[in-house]
Amino acid sequence: MTHLSDIAIAQAKRLEHIKNIAAKLKVEEDNIEMYGKYKAKLPLSLIDDKKIENNNLVLVTALTPTPAGEGKTTVSIGLTEGLNKIGKQATVVLREPSLGPVFGIKGGAAGGGYSQVVPMEDINLHFTGDFSAVEKANNLLSALIDNNIQSKTNNLNIDPRTILWKRVIDMNDRALRDITIGLGGTANGVPRQDGFNITAASEVMAILCMASDLENLKKRLGDIFIGFTYKNEPVFARDLKAENAMAILLKEAIKPNLVQTLEENPAIIHGGPFANIAQGTNTIIATKMGLSLSNYVVTEAGFGADLGAEKFLNIKSQFAKLNPKCVVLVATIRALRHHGGAKSEAYNTPDLEKVTEGFKNLEKHIENIRKYNIEPVVAINSFVSDSDEEVSFVIEKCASLGVEAVLSEGWAKGGEGTRDLAKAVVNVVENKATQYKPLYDWKSPVTDKIEIIAKEIYGAKNVEYSKQAQLNLRRINRLGFNDFAICMAKTQKSFSDNEFLIGRPEGFTVTVREIEIAAGAQFIIPILGKMMRMPGLPSVPASENMTIDNNGVISGLS
Amino acid sequence: MTHLSDIAIAQAKRLEHIKNIAAKLKVEEDNIEMYGKYKAKLPLSLIDDKKIENNNLVLVTALTPTPAGEGKTTVSIGLTEGLNKIGKQATVVLREPSLGPVFGIKGGAAGGGYSQVVPMEDINLHFTGDFSAVEKANNLLSALIDNNIQSKTNNLNIDPRTILWKRVIDMNDRALRDITIGLGGTANGVPRQDGFNITAASEVMAILCMASDLENLKKRLGDIFIGFTYKNEPVFARDLKAENAMAILLKEAIKPNLVQTLEENPAIIHGGPFANIAQGTNTIIATKMGLSLSNYVVTEAGFGADLGAEKFLNIKSQFAKLNPKCVVLVATIRALRHHGGAKSEAYNTPDLEKVTEGFKNLEKHIENIRKYNIEPVVAINSFVSDSDEEVSFVIEKCASLGVEAVLSEGWAKGGEGTRDLAKAVVNVVENKATQYKPLYDWKSPVTDKIEIIAKEIYGAKNVEYSKQAQLNLRRINRLGFNDFAICMAKTQKSFSDNEFLIGRPEGFTVTVREIEIAAGAQFIIPILGKMMRMPGLPSVPASENMTIDNNGVISGLS
Repeated sequence: MTHLSDIAIAQAKRLEHIKNIAAKLKVEEDNIEMYGKYKAKLPLSLIDDKKIENNNLVLVTALTPTPAGEGKTTVSIGLTEGLNKIGKQATVVLREPSLGPVFGIKGGAAGGGYSQVVPMEDINLHFTGDFSAVEKANNLLSALIDNNIQSKTNNLNIDPRTILWKRVIDMNDRALRDITIGLGGTANGVPRQDGFNITAASEVMAILCMASDLENLKKRLGDIFIGFTYKNEPVFARDLKAENAMAILLKEAIKPNLVQTLEENPAIIHGGPFANIAQGTNTIIATKMGLSLSNYVVTEAGFGADLGAEKFLNIKSQFAKLNPKCVVLVATIRALRHHGGAKSEAYNTPDLEKVTEGFKNLEKHIENIRKYNIEPVVAINSFVSDSDEEVSFVIEKCASLGVEAVLSEGWAKGGEGTRDLAKAVVNVVENKATQYKPLYDWKSPVTDKIEIIAKEIYGAKNVEYSKQAQLNLRRINRLGFNDFAICMAKTQKSFSDNEFLIGRPEGFTVTVREIEIAAGAQFIIPILGKMMRMPGLPSVPASENMTIDNNGVISGLS
Repeated sequence: MTHLSDIAIAQAKRLEHIKNIAAKLKVEEDNIEMYGKYKAKLPLSLIDDKKIENNNLVLVTALTPTPAGEGKTTVSIGLTEGLNKIGKQATVVLREPSLGPVFGIKGGAAGGGYSQVVPMEDINLHFTGDFSAVEKANNLLSALIDNNIQSKTNNLNIDPRTILWKRVIDMNDRALRDITIGLGGTANGVPRQDGFNITAASEVMAILCMASDLENLKKRLGDIFIGFTYKNEPVFARDLKAENAMAILLKEAIKPNLVQTLEENPAIIHGGPFANIAQGTNTIIATKMGLSLSNYVVTEAGFGADLGAEKFLNIKSQFAKLNPKCVVLVATIRALRHHGGAKSEAYNTPDLEKVTEGFKNLEKHIENIRKYNIEPVVAINSFVSDSDEEVSFVIEKCASLGVEAVLSEGWAKGGEGTRDLAKAVVNVVENKATQYKPLYDWKSPVTDKIEIIAKEIYGAKNVEYSKQAQLNLRRINRLGFNDFAICMAKTQKSFSDNEFLIGRPEGFTVTVREIEIAAGAQFIIPILGKMMRMPGLPSVPASENMTIDNNGVISGLS
């Protein structure tokens, strides 16, 4: 069996005009702003709180993933096709892909096989310019900071050594991680150490995804905490009068983007914050837009459920008063083998024993989802290397826990391959959904909030704080940031903060090394390990194998 | 008399849907790609060589400008309105504004008063993402260079000390002019000195503006000269297999943008290369698009006619086989006072004596335009401080040279204020136009080409080459780049390379300090002075006074 590449499948699709996709959501052509024939922006005026309450939100998350990822986006898109197949009006709401990794190893992030959103090239490249707008807003603030330090007359007395705000670029460019700026004499500013993060890691991106409207966006941008003056007073973006200009740069980026799936169902794609140091899910505005226009909204959050779902439920849903009615836990037989101890070279070799052992990881995630008062459905994202007995084992084991596990064949078959999954989700939504409850209240003490996540979700025995983290806690207290949400930064490879502890580790201690603040996003970010904020390119970058012809037809983009 | 701000005038305008603007060019709705309701991209398939030949190209340039600029863009837009008023089908074709200066002092570049292109906020901000695309393509090449140096297996042996290729960002950010990258250990690449230019200064922008189609764009991107290996062999972007990925990033940016003037006439805005180190005019594709769709095309080129018109005629028109039939020389009474010796505080005080003396500058520009076998028209861009006798003097003096000089009141009155200018232009186009001739052939020896420009256009007595420039000439010869065009980098404030020599200097020597190469653009760039490629922000940046409300309405953008 030979498979077409993702881009070949996407290019073979004759796309529907975006006005017809909008029509499926009962949005008139005059109400959308087209970006070419196949992309559009939706005005915020379409958000309708009453409809949001009555429609159904489904979160797709995963067990603890292998480095290749377990296909949350592909399952989300596939499930949406399946829901439409069985007569539900469903929209998939996703994050925007980052451009940087497209030229590296990972490639794009618009689904795969027969579960893709299209036009995939545009979505993976500049799309409607949202990432660029975030980058510009972030870097305008940087320029204003260095300009203020340079200025003789308009100077806030910022201590350059305390500046926490970094520049960003949507490129995998390791040489920009650690740089010295302002060299070359007095005309070029004041020399200081700096660095670039990838744009997805910008707090502006996190803020865009938390904002409720332009006014709230502006407020949050002004609240960005930059560093300290020489007198140790905190400095915020509003002190540089930066928030209006930054919001001006984001005035279009705040509007969600409408595209389509391969089966011509609506897809709303908006925002792309990092999943390791930020919330890793699409904008609140996009989720609300989906729920205002569609009876079912399928969405996803980055990495495993211990990170993505935890943040989706405790941060996003709690803040935005969303009520997810079902959580789909994506599992792959491959990942279960991994958690059972299989080496990477044996990931594709059937091994029931390993799957049995690895199931403990999935079981912990199932238990965790139930702590939020939500019923999970397990989607087994089908691979050709899966054996029948491994799949049957997972289905039966889940059944013994009262959970329906369904083979999801969206990659190979599109919506035809996800009818069963769709039925299982509808069953939970219609028959088992209640009001979800977050695990903690934002107003609780910071260390309480951190402990709840570490113990309840990760399964840690206790939490330790480094000297640095203890200093950070005191600073948070002094600055009055106690009521912020906890946005954990932890390896995605393990429930613990040690990436080598696979399966369902127990009795471990979690160490908070330091704690960052994203005051505009209202996040306290405990750092449990080294976080990568600027990826590098591989020795042979994907860019080397890309081509484009004179008609603009691209190959080699994945 | 109180005047509304540019943005207030622009916001008061009820815009026509862009499909109706396209209809004026006989382009069907299905043939454009809308970016919202008021912007669109035009497909390259609309370019028609036959029509280009039969339609009329008018270049707007200026006398040697004061720092405030003399209003070329405003006159270009106004003239287009006037041409349409007198029954000609005219389109204005302009450069895209750079975002960086919008937050600095200069503000936007979408015309002024009642001669503007709209939506001015969008045009001045991200527009359709072309600048961002250029920035990404430029910086992808940078990342590939540093990645190649870092790679153990895929290494071209590039000597980091020889790298000429810089990163770019569309921001006024002086702290990035001179930086050190690759710090922090072996995982972060190889340390080297680097810097950011503003995006308009990227060779990718120059290339985009010279390219004839995607294939040619790709070829030019591959031809970018990066630096040398340790064995002193030249390294090009194609050696990094970068040209396809870079072209992929530019696949939408290569398409010209359609917007409208305040009087609902078509405006094509595309490309924005620096006028000091690059060609400073819109893309060849945009100019050809205009001429394919419109009987009259009004376009402009940066700075005074010694720079902008010289490059437009010798580089762009010669390469693209365009035939400009009339050149409009924009003059202001203010600038004539300046060239007559008025101090800046007296720019707005009538002074016939100074204007009489300053006229020598305009006279030299008139003589220069005629060297290309083109008849000029002088547009006196009207200011309230102009006295009748000064204006009459200029009109009569021009008449004595056989040149029609006309008061242009587009800023205050739109097309009603430029009817006379339009008639004067039509008179030249219909009665005096012949085949223009460039001043030099690209195939001539490099130093011959430089001397022709310096002596014929600047009025220099001779040209001297620094030691560095002589080395650069030998390198150009070794690399086989002799047949490139000359793209002069000289102060815009004087005909000479000394900004303090106002009026019509004579008997001076021009010194070529060094010579740069833009091999993809096919430019040899003699540097006659210090060129600014990364502006800074002022002490109180314009961003501080901008506001945006919850409906997205902006103020303070100019």
